[in-house]
Amino acid sequence: MSDIYEQSIKLHKKYGGKLEVVSKVPLLNKEDLSLAYTPGVAGVCLAIAKNKELAREYTLKKNTVAIVTDGTAILGLGDLGPLAAIPVMEGKAAIFKEFGGVDAFPICLDTKDTEEIIKLVKQIAPVFGGINLEDISAPRCFEIEERLRKELDIPVMHDDQWGAATVTLAALINALKIIGMDKKDAKVVFSGVGSAGVATGRLLHEYGITKTIFCDSKGIITSKRTDLTKEKVELLKGNTIKENDGGLEDAIKNADVFIGLSKPDILTPDMVKSMTSKPIIFALANPTPEITPEKAHDAGAYIVATGRSDYPNQINNSLVFPGAFKAMLDKRIPQFENKIFITVAIALAEMIENPTPERIIPSMFDKGVRDVVYNAVSSLSL
Amino acid sequence: MSDIYEQSIKLHKKYGGKLEVVSKVPLLNKEDLSLAYTPGVAGVCLAIAKNKELAREYTLKKNTVAIVTDGTAILGLGDLGPLAAIPVMEGKAAIFKEFGGVDAFPICLDTKDTEEIIKLVKQIAPVFGGINLEDISAPRCFEIEERLRKELDIPVMHDDQWGAATVTLAALINALKIIGMDKKDAKVVFSGVGSAGVATGRLLHEYGITKTIFCDSKGIITSKRTDLTKEKVELLKGNTIKENDGGLEDAIKNADVFIGLSKPDILTPDMVKSMTSKPIIFALANPTPEITPEKAHDAGAYIVATGRSDYPNQINNSLVFPGAFKAMLDKRIPQFENKIFITVAIALAEMIENPTPERIIPSMFDKGVRDVVYNAVSSLSL
Repeated sequence: MSDIYEQSIKLHKKYGGKLEVVSKVPLLNKEDLSLAYTPGVAGVCLAIAKNKELAREYTLKKNTVAIVTDGTAILGLGDLGPLAAIPVMEGKAAIFKEFGGVDAFPICLDTKDTEEIIKLVKQIAPVFGGINLEDISAPRCFEIEERLRKELDIPVMHDDQWGAATVTLAALINALKIIGMDKKDAKVVFSGVGSAGVATGRLLHEYGITKTIFCDSKGIITSKRTDLTKEKVELLKGNTIKENDGGLEDAIKNADVFIGLSKPDILTPDMVKSMTSKPIIFALANPTPEITPEKAHDAGAYIVATGRSDYPNQINNSLVFPGAFKAMLDKRIPQFENKIFITVAIALAEMIENPTPERIIPSMFDKGVRDVVYNAVSSLSL
Repeated sequence: MSDIYEQSIKLHKKYGGKLEVVSKVPLLNKEDLSLAYTPGVAGVCLAIAKNKELAREYTLKKNTVAIVTDGTAILGLGDLGPLAAIPVMEGKAAIFKEFGGVDAFPICLDTKDTEEIIKLVKQIAPVFGGINLEDISAPRCFEIEERLRKELDIPVMHDDQWGAATVTLAALINALKIIGMDKKDAKVVFSGVGSAGVATGRLLHEYGITKTIFCDSKGIITSKRTDLTKEKVELLKGNTIKENDGGLEDAIKNADVFIGLSKPDILTPDMVKSMTSKPIIFALANPTPEITPEKAHDAGAYIVATGRSDYPNQINNSLVFPGAFKAMLDKRIPQFENKIFITVAIALAEMIENPTPERIIPSMFDKGVRDVVYNAVSSLSL
């Protein structure tokens, strides 16, 4: 990786950060200024003071999202703190603008306290039309998202949960289509029950994929275990498969699908061989997957997806958030909910007319991705 | 005003807010993304985690200022709340970029609590290279600025205080030059001792203009009064003039300079007539000054300045903050202090080679203003 790291550092140094904040209105003379600023702007202030809803028409609140992080779960790198989180949030904001036409600004917080984060996001919310939570570690991310959705009047989404869940579901819909399996019959084994694992499990259950087994670092999650977070307990309720003790190597036997949102190299070729005849492997740990596509195929995998752009079938959050937030803002949809993500997943899957093992999901550079996502979300506002 | 208010509302509606957040780096293909975002960006994150100072080289922290308000003192309109404050903060951010090359982003807070504001600004500080406090009412603004300057490692400036103070001092330097009066001899009467009045008083004292009388809504501030804030008590210590009781009409007699940072129409023609032979009138209440320039001149005023762009001699904060913050960021000057503002005031005054009563201060559209301010601040970093 060191070569691409060095190139990236060079790029960041050259530009001195990736984002800039520019005026859409001209400021060339006194007349321009008297409308964009004093004295004319006082009229806009007074109008909004009288009718607060006008802030969504007359100000950047109309089209701007905060990307909020505390830097505790940066990429696969862990807790590097708020300063080291900035380059990721800037990249995300750049993608928001480029792929969704949404203005986004990074808010990197110097606190990890759940209550303080909730309070702070509420206090800075006036300027924003939506909140994208990012790279906040589990289980705090669940509480923060749930509370903010209840306590704010703008849409809130933790992208590490729902971006990952939505694209994974989209890819899985096409993978099952290829092997000709009904969603009710697919046995799906998860490795990793962090923010992305929990949300993906929830979304799959709601979609109707319920033959699920979840494994965390201690093995299969069963109702016998006494060390479970409330999110893991909740997930168990969605399963329709008989509980068994054991580890990943036990869970994976005769499974149709493996979904890894965990750690490098934990899926062995022998485990793949113990699956059914056409194994579907989503090895989404980044940048090093649970098993490399080469090894997976050698062991008999039929369809392989990763989080990487240098293999086929990239499971990439960036397919979802730009178009989804743009529609939420434009249509003034009050809050994200699971049916939005399922609708988007189905729409993304349908973009691929004839799925093949090498192409189960669109690329973010495919024409029309943003519009498909935008229209799917917008359809729910009617 | 209603016509310009309507035009301004039309403009804001047309653009849907004035600011946008855009990427400086290209995002045209997978290669671009792999450097601006994952996987390459991980190298930048790791470098910053190792050496936090690099955030000022590799991220938007290098060139970005937060414009922080609680909406309690919006223009001359008072406490309209954080949503109604957004158009002013956006206008300010647009000026930051256009006139200073500084990226600025509005943070409009849904809290008025001093301690909560201080805590919040510290918690969001990682992304920013500086903090511009704006339209926060006195006396909270003093405490907030003072504490943040001590507790943050980036420059903090309340523009309503120091922008106003700096430009007022610059204009006064040239006005005194025109009438041939030494700064030690000028008798200056203030009407209004809010955020701008206190800061201007402090700066004039430090510059050497100490024959000052301050009037608030209850009359002349004297050490006998028991209703004074600590800032007003502090101001009195800088005076070198004998204390007298009374109101503005008493204070103004034989004064050389009137500085109004208060309310419309409180300076009467008779008061102007009671001043010395060449009265200098700075009637800075906005948009309606303490006395109109027409009335002031009719009553014998020799030099008149206002906050308005449609009269000569506009005392305009926008002369200072873009260039000053740009220099603070570029030169990594750790904190604002009074000598910076005095240096800038002198430099701005010197821009006018031959001051006349109609031209004591540059316009923000004059070529070179930004460079003069930038170089003045930068000179202090050596």
